[in-house]
Formats: sequence, structure tokens, C-alpha cells
Amino acid sequence: MVTSSGAIGRIAVDAMGGDLGPTEVVAAVKLALHQYSALNPITLVGDEKVLKPLIANAGLNHNDRLSVFHTSEVITMEDKPLNALKKKKDSSMVRAVELVKSGEAGVVVSCGNTGALMAAGTLRLRTMEGIARPALAAVCPREGGYFILIDAGANPEAKPEHLVHNAVLGSHYCRVMLGVKNPRVGLMTIGTEEGKGNALVAETHDLLRRVEGIVNYAGPIEGFHVFAEHVDVVVCDGFVGNIMLKSWESLVKFFSNLLREELQSNPMRATGALMSRGAFNALKERINPERYGGAPLLGLNGHVLKAHGSSNRHAIKSAIHAASMILKADMNQRIIADIARANETLAQPSAV
Amino acid sequence: MVTSSGAIGRIAVDAMGGDLGPTEVVAAVKLALHQYSALNPITLVGDEKVLKPLIANAGLNHNDRLSVFHTSEVITMEDKPLNALKKKKDSSMVRAVELVKSGEAGVVVSCGNTGALMAAGTLRLRTMEGIARPALAAVCPREGGYFILIDAGANPEAKPEHLVHNAVLGSHYCRVMLGVKNPRVGLMTIGTEEGKGNALVAETHDLLRRVEGIVNYAGPIEGFHVFAEHVDVVVCDGFVGNIMLKSWESLVKFFSNLLREELQSNPMRATGALMSRGAFNALKERINPERYGGAPLLGLNGHVLKAHGSSNRHAIKSAIHAASMILKADMNQRIIADIARANETLAQPSAV
Repeated sequence: MVTSSGAIGRIAVDAMGGDLGPTEVVAAVKLALHQYSALNPITLVGDEKVLKPLIANAGLNHNDRLSVFHTSEVITMEDKPLNALKKKKDSSMVRAVELVKSGEAGVVVSCGNTGALMAAGTLRLRTMEGIARPALAAVCPREGGYFILIDAGANPEAKPEHLVHNAVLGSHYCRVMLGVKNPRVGLMTIGTEEGKGNALVAETHDLLRRVEGIVNYAGPIEGFHVFAEHVDVVVCDGFVGNIMLKSWESLVKFFSNLLREELQSNPMRATGALMSRGAFNALKERINPERYGGAPLLGLNGHVLKAHGSSNRHAIKSAIHAASMILKADMNQRIIADIARANETLAQPSAV
Repeated sequence: MVTSSGAIGRIAVDAMGGDLGPTEVVAAVKLALHQYSALNPITLVGDEKVLKPLIANAGLNHNDRLSVFHTSEVITMEDKPLNALKKKKDSSMVRAVELVKSGEAGVVVSCGNTGALMAAGTLRLRTMEGIARPALAAVCPREGGYFILIDAGANPEAKPEHLVHNAVLGSHYCRVMLGVKNPRVGLMTIGTEEGKGNALVAETHDLLRRVEGIVNYAGPIEGFHVFAEHVDVVVCDGFVGNIMLKSWESLVKFFSNLLREELQSNPMRATGALMSRGAFNALKERINPERYGGAPLLGLNGHVLKAHGSSNRHAIKSAIHAASMILKADMNQRIIADIARANETLAQPSAV
């Protein structure tokens, strides 16, 4: 058995979960192994009858950084999460999570059913000492860089201490993924006038001010400022975070459709658009969700990375790379230490 | 004293509140009076020493659809809402709201301090019979048209019955502003899988299913679908609504800035952009918030319309026009009737 700490941890990749199927996952693994020479070794989890030929075709047969773990079942997007966990015990997703639990892998990457992965991660790995609920983090573009949104949907009924934990989790993920040493953390709210916001935010605000030194708290942040260069980590509950994130995707799609329609509505506009197509491609690349292909479920005893169901090989490759960065940074060990410090501080009587 | 019902109600316009000052408001009134021949009469509320010369310059001196109500004070954007109400009793905003209370006007339009207007409206006019909290509504563009977002920020700690009332309020505003006869109403949530959403949404969902016939409830709606052609009214609490709305503004600004930068980064792209500039202008017009210049605070005994602080004459003109449409439709009378029916239905024991 291999321990999960440090650079020797393996990456367990659920090969069966995504919309595009195992072909795309194997292609992603090939890309990742070629592009990143220092990548942690990979275990592809899935049906070996399907995987072996794909691996052979990809020329990865004798790659000593790749192994296969055979499973006989697949959790689909239509499966109800808790049902799926109960009934499909030999599914690629469940087995991949179990490899992390047993220490044979340090991180699991899956583009399968989100609800099932959150449930499998939470129930099999359990939350870390000192944390009651896991949180989903996402990397989003903004003026001058990127920010981490946490929680993007794992915990829709958050308590103030959960949001403080989100601030700690998000800060560490920001350090690993964005390389920001001392990330500024903002608390999502609705205006700074008196009587604004809600009780959850008011109480969280007080707690965040008490964990100074652990969290670099920059104060409340309004919707107006999310995409401006204000903070590196945006903290909110999973209800607000999921609605924001998905509505942004919906808005960008709408905006892009409108622009495309207008640009194609007459020949001169269409010619102009052709001449400036480099700009549209650059914009697309800048806001491309494939860039950081995965959203980690943080706060568990083991690293879990969710990639979008519709991820193509490039997005899955990015997620595998992110998984490797998380392992090398030994992220969870640092998180555990900071969570303990934060909880200790909050357990003391407030000086305010 | 003029009654507030029907087409004879006056529009009280707070002339002193906006960022651009009374000059812009008088210019907006001039535009509105010229453009809409059936517009309700207007009372400009503010300092007559300032307003009279502006009105004379605009050639509106002898316009029998325009009068001035003199006030000596102004609530600024920096004023704390409750303080301002207490100390500035002769402010243009407070007096304009009082004209609605006394029945001398049917609706107030202001681009002043949002918190102060919400407080003045709520405290002076009080909520309607059967409604505990007012809600702010906003018109937003989507594929194939527009939708109403309600609540955009008035009530951040909503209860299920408040959200049902929002559904009724938003449906009526949708009828008046967008001309949709039987608006489809969606309840903002985070996924339709079991165990998703939060307790507020689960309970509201059950209540909305019981008021069929009053609200055309289309079911829960996820962030993914907000800008697709799914529903005409999106119901949520004021915390979620305000964060969504403002984050969308922030995202559009960010997206536009990125696109502008990329288009200007080399001469060919810039030339292409010039050729297709009609497309960019059309897009801008389509998502232009000036189009529906105001957001009504619904659920009060009297109509209150908030325009953006930075509104220019065109946005204020649109708000004045919206105010006139609201009066002509006798919106609040219809709302009162439906709220009574909804409350009656919900008071009966649930059949489910």
C-alpha cells in the first residue's frame, strides 16, 4: 500500500463517468502523460475489456506511470446518487474513491454524476477532523486574473462556521492552483449599508475577523465587484454559489449567441467578424472552463476532483494536472493544520 | 385631492436624487412628455429655485401636464437610510412618497438612494393587506425576450409565503411591462436531484403548486436556464436575487472589457471591429438597462419605482413611461385581489 502524502500518491481516474466516455478519458491521460513529465502516476478505473484496447491504441501499453483497476459497473448521469452508491458497489466511481480511502491513490478525478461523486466522497472518505461539511470550489476568470468561488454547490444550508471553513479551504486551493501566496478573501453579500445582508453573513463576518492570520479577510463583497480585481477567493454558501456559477455560464452563452447572431446578420458585419476572429478566439480561451478542468470537493479525508460531465480530453487533462498539483502541494495536510487553528481561535471567547 | 386609481393618477418624480442631478431629470421629463402623448401628468418634486429655471429652459413652463412641488432638502447617496428619513423630512424623496400616500400622486419615480427609497416606501406607504414584505423587481434580457427577476434585493431573509407573494407580484408586473398574458413562473434553485436545494425552496415549491390558477407555476429553475427561453418570472429571495443581478452586471462589464481589449490589440482586428460595429451596438441596445429604466418596489399601498442612481435622461424617461403603464393598468388593485385569493388558498388545509 502506498501512502497518500506527497509526490508518490497516485491519481485515480474514473474512466467511465463522462458524457464522452472512456475514449476521451484515455485520450486525456495520454495528453497529460506526454505534457507533464513530473505527473504523478495514474490508475485508470473502469472496465478493463473496454480500457485495455483503448490504452493499446493510444500506445500506452507499457507506460510504467499507468495502471488499470478493473470494475464492472458504471454510475450514469440519470442514477439517483444515494441509490447508485448502494446498488453499484463495483462502479468505477465508487472504486476510484475507495482507492483514495485505502491510500492506494491520493486523489480521484471523475467527470461522472456530480451528486453521486459528492455523496461517494462524503460517505466513503468522511469530512476532515474539525469540518462538518465539504465544499465545492471553482476557478473563475476576472479582471487581471482568476478567483476561487467556494462553495459552488455542495452545502446549500450553510452555518457561519461552515463559511469560515470555506474561507480556509478556498485559500489553500487558491495557493495551489493560482499561485497566490496570501489570497484576499471576500464574503459574498448584498450591500454594505446598515441592515443589509442576512444573519448568516453578519455572523460569518464577525467570525472571519477573528481568524485573522489564518484567513486574509478583505471584507464583504457585492455582486458588482465579483469580476473586478477585488479578491482572490469569494466565499458563499452552496445555494448562492451554485446559482451564481450556473447563471454566469447561462449568461455567457446568451451573450455569445446574441453577438454571433448580430455579427452574421449582414455581409459587412460578417466580414468584419472574420477579420477580428482572433479576438473572439482569445476571449473564448480566456474564459475557457477547460483551463482548470476540475472543481475539487474540499474538506474530505482525501482529495476529490470533479470535472464537468461534458469535459473533452483537454478539460480532463487539465483536471488530471490539477490533481497532480494538489498532491504535490500536500494540500490537505496544510488545510488540516489551518482548520485546527481556526477552530481553536473560534472556540475562545470573543474579544469583541 | 386626486385619487390614485386609473389613468388620472399623477406621477411624482423625485427631481433631486440621481447622480446626474435635476438637469437630467428635467430633460427626461421633457423627452417623456414629447414622446408619450397619453402620459399621466407629472409632478416634479424638488427645490423650485433649481427646478423653475430648468423647466423654463426646457420650454415646459406652460405645460399643463407638469407641476412642481417644492421641497427644501435632498437625501444623498451617502445618507444612511433610516437617519435620512428621520432628519430630512422635507426631502424631495420623502415628499414624493407622501404625495402617493395622500393620493395626490399614484406612483413615485426616484433615482435616489435605494435604501432610503425602500425604507421611505415601506414605512410611509406600508405593505398591502396580506403582504408582509415588499419585493424589488427587475426586467432582464434572455433568449427570445425578457424576464422579471423578483426579489432583486428588498427582502434578504424571505419565508416561503413571501416567495409565493413574489410570484404573484412578479406575474402582474410581467403582464404590465412585458405584455405576457399568462407568465410562466420559475423558482430559483440548484438542481432537481433529490436532496438538492434548501428548505426554503422545498417549502415554497409545495406552496406554489397549491396556488395554481393564480400563479402559472412552471417548476424549479436552475442557474443554467435563467437566460434560456424557459420562464417569464424568476422568483427568489432578495439575497440571491441581488447577488445574481449585480454579478451579471459585473460579468457583462468584464466580458465587454475583455472583448474591447482583444479587438484593439492589432490593426486588423480593429478594422474588423469597425466594420462590424453595428453588431456591437445592437447587442448593447439589446441588453441596455435603460430600456426598462426602473425597478418597482412591489407590495406597498402605492406604486414606487426605483431608477438606477446613474440613470441618464433616457433611462429616467423609460422609468417615467413604466410608471405611467403601471398606473393605467391599475396594477395594485389586481395584485391585491390575487394576493387575497392566494392567501385564502394557502390558509386552507393542504390536500397533499
